[in-house]
Amino acid sequence: METVSVNKAHGGVQGVYRHDSAATGTSMTFAAFVPDHEPGARLPVLWFLSGLTCTHANVMEKGEFRAACAEHGIILIAPDTSPRGDDVPDDATYDFGKGAGFYVDATEAPWSANFRMRSYIEDELPALVAAEFPADMARQGITGHSMGGHGALTIGLRNPDRFRSVSAFAPIVSPLHCPWGEKALTGYLGQDRTTWRKYDACALIEDGARVPEILVDQGDADQFLSDQLKPELLSDACRTAGIDLTLRMQPGYDHSYYFISTFMPDHVAWHAERLA
Amino acid sequence: METVSVNKAHGGVQGVYRHDSAATGTSMTFAAFVPDHEPGARLPVLWFLSGLTCTHANVMEKGEFRAACAEHGIILIAPDTSPRGDDVPDDATYDFGKGAGFYVDATEAPWSANFRMRSYIEDELPALVAAEFPADMARQGITGHSMGGHGALTIGLRNPDRFRSVSAFAPIVSPLHCPWGEKALTGYLGQDRTTWRKYDACALIEDGARVPEILVDQGDADQFLSDQLKPELLSDACRTAGIDLTLRMQPGYDHSYYFISTFMPDHVAWHAERLA
Repeated sequence: METVSVNKAHGGVQGVYRHDSAATGTSMTFAAFVPDHEPGARLPVLWFLSGLTCTHANVMEKGEFRAACAEHGIILIAPDTSPRGDDVPDDATYDFGKGAGFYVDATEAPWSANFRMRSYIEDELPALVAAEFPADMARQGITGHSMGGHGALTIGLRNPDRFRSVSAFAPIVSPLHCPWGEKALTGYLGQDRTTWRKYDACALIEDGARVPEILVDQGDADQFLSDQLKPELLSDACRTAGIDLTLRMQPGYDHSYYFISTFMPDHVAWHAERLA
Repeated sequence: METVSVNKAHGGVQGVYRHDSAATGTSMTFAAFVPDHEPGARLPVLWFLSGLTCTHANVMEKGEFRAACAEHGIILIAPDTSPRGDDVPDDATYDFGKGAGFYVDATEAPWSANFRMRSYIEDELPALVAAEFPADMARQGITGHSMGGHGALTIGLRNPDRFRSVSAFAPIVSPLHCPWGEKALTGYLGQDRTTWRKYDACALIEDGARVPEILVDQGDADQFLSDQLKPELLSDACRTAGIDLTLRMQPGYDHSYYFISTFMPDHVAWHAERLA
């Protein structure tokens, strides 16, 4: 693991790191904030998965999470949203290819060679974080925004033993039922929609996946609310399954980091309580 | 005044606005955060002047001021650092020309036609803010970073009746005594260094300018500390003049927004106390 940059911030260290990923076959970059801590201490870890077009840098620069992470003594890890590099296949649109990995292991050519973000986030990067940072991997939470909210929900639902807490900001709750999801999962996984179900939070719940509770913040002025995000589908699935969903519709907020940063301290505190 | 964008954030509105400036002869863009407030209320105003290479957007995205401004009920105005546009003269280097206005009224050709940032910040933009926002112009404070810290100190010192509170992050305290300042002021004002003194915080103090107190945060790992920033010159000037300078050397912090955002809540609270 190579250190790209480190900056002292809010008493801790905001770092950017690069490593060669076996999962994606590329170099991968991620951001990690480690608060000030006692020597030898092991801190809980909150994962933040980012949305379409983002890298590790967007939330690092605009997320306003460091004050809260410092207050609660939580490490925040912000991975990239896809493999990168000249040899990685891409698509001219913003919602497929680079910057749009959708946290799946692609099975369709040419994507399957590199677009293995599920394995990267679920297996490879946690092992690296455990080895390189003062992280207590028995205390992990996960959150994310939009496509990254989809990632947080699906990875959280598939791994309830790993994550004690799952939240999301304006998540895509069902790729099976929105244009972004249909385009991306057709491309990465093919036409057989049964293979998509493990990458769809609502379908995972319908198929038996369980977490005790979920926190979601959603702006009611979000331009993607009705055609892409559809939080009511998650509400229905959680109600049927008996999952305690707290869905907060936030009046006047849109899909931007101005929305995320406003409610970030709430999410960090909510995770901190569950990771204590 | 034209609205470029508005986003709800921390209960208030983060806006970006554009207007035709008589001072610079160009279109100018600035950011304004207006917290939630009672109808008819007039809020104190904190000006944030940005550093070299910045626009209005850097602090807006990375400054982490909104939570504190919402808590204290303060408007924050973030102007651009120079005139912009294809017709505006420029220089190939980062520390002169566009993005490097140094908050002076240039007297040398070709800069004097547009680089009139002193008049813009001191006269034109305040009038616009007073007219367009719920601002109590009797309660203004000013701060800034690096070149913008120079701007905040010099504008604050020249206008003690307008600003009740003056602070800075890692400011250039004496353009007369650093390479950035010597280059820029030679270009904008010419070889006669006596004309520079009204744009030099230390010289202004030596020449009799007074404010009751100044707060400065400065990282001790700042890469520009010893050759450009030289806070000891401000300490010496304030000590001689009897100005109450609080200079906090922050261990391990650099010149970046990771430093600024860490201490931003302190500065907002400090100004709020003085603008109450």
